[in-house]
Amino acid sequence: MARLSVKLAADGGAADITDQVQEVLEETSLEEGIVTVFMAGSTGAITTIEFEPGLVKTDLPEAMERVAPTNIPYEHRKRWGDDNGRAHVKASIMGPSLVVPFAQGKLVLGTWQQIVAINWDTRTRTREIIIQIMGA
Amino acid sequence: MARLSVKLAADGGAADITDQVQEVLEETSLEEGIVTVFMAGSTGAITTIEFEPGLVKTDLPEAMERVAPTNIPYEHRKRWGDDNGRAHVKASIMGPSLVVPFAQGKLVLGTWQQIVAINWDTRTRTREIIIQIMGA
Amino acid sequence: MARLSVKLAADGGAADITDQVQEVLEETSLEEGIVTVFMAGSTGAITTIEFEPGLVKTDLPEAMERVAPTNIPYEHRKRWGDDNGRAHVKASIMGPSLVVPFAQGKLVLGTWQQIVAINWDTRTRTREIIIQIMGA
Repeated sequence: MARLSVKLAADGGAADITDQVQEVLEETSLEEGIVTVFMAGSTGAITTIEFEPGLVKTDLPEAMERVAPTNIPYEHRKRWGDDNGRAHVKASIMGPSLVVPFAQGKLVLGTWQQIVAINWDTRTRTREIIIQIMGA
Repeated sequence: MARLSVKLAADGGAADITDQVQEVLEETSLEEGIVTVFMAGSTGAITTIEFEPGLVKTDLPEAMERVAPTNIPYEHRKRWGDDNGRAHVKASIMGPSLVVPFAQGKLVLGTWQQIVAINWDTRTRTREIIIQIMGA
Repeated sequence: MARLSVKLAADGGAADITDQVQEVLEETSLEEGIVTVFMAGSTGAITTIEFEPGLVKTDLPEAMERVAPTNIPYEHRKRWGDDNGRAHVKASIMGPSLVVPFAQGKLVLGTWQQIVAINWDTRTRTREIIIQIMGA
């Protein structure tokens, strides 16, 4: 098991962690199997995307804003005083776990498909990401 | 493989199953690996969330209601007479599978991050959840 | 590792690949474990659904249209000229990976729960799907 710490901006700050995941994979010298990438924390998510700023900084955050808007009341705030209800909702819907197959020691991804860690929280966060590799 | 049966209310009824998953893990005496948690059924989902009632009972269901509203026509109803089109849509988007790494026999989760089973169906359901552990 | 190539229509074209995944599983003669199904490509997704046309062709695409509408400007287009910003957004939210447990050599799925590959891209695509099986 390996851990990455990645500092990410608020409200959708994202990092392309594909190369770091591939490096962890290469240290194992495993040939074939699956890599689990997991966001430890309830206001972040892991998925894949074509990592270009238009999608990552604008189009995806705007879509998630339609699902969990900023300017509506959240019960999470009423009960706990926390302003990040929308962050929890976005993270739960996208999910914290991604599983990527590998063969010949390489992640099997599409040409324009990168592994991305996203911080939906309403403040900058250093997020902890877990990488667990199973294979032979 | 272990199975949990959990009775959940309609339209987003949810249970924190973290402790039960951890117990299944401890019975294996495995030290490191991944736990797959899977909802058997097309109207439920597995994800993580900070399990507090504001988020679980209100904020998340209201967000998914924006995606798949109650008071619109569904083709699923026209074809099959089933009133749970919105449930299928919500479950498909969130997804039935979650994969959580573990180390030293403990699930690696954030402090406020719990494993949650959600019933999106339009009636109370006893949901079957599969836990499959791989590791060494 | 096995690969499927599936030709799918634009904007939510979908195929039930449950039988193909089960066939790949049977060729391994493994008894118990997990199957990872992965969409190679940033404009497709894998999930489960009750595979009937009302849900697959209408209800699910219409819900994702609410999240990432066709007739709004996307930054992805402004930067790259690509018309498929909405496709990337939908695919990222749904996610490319699904993990399904199996026991006695059979996928453990609900009665009305099928594994589905979805092409969110704005043109017909032959999508490559990776199947990786881990077990004993």
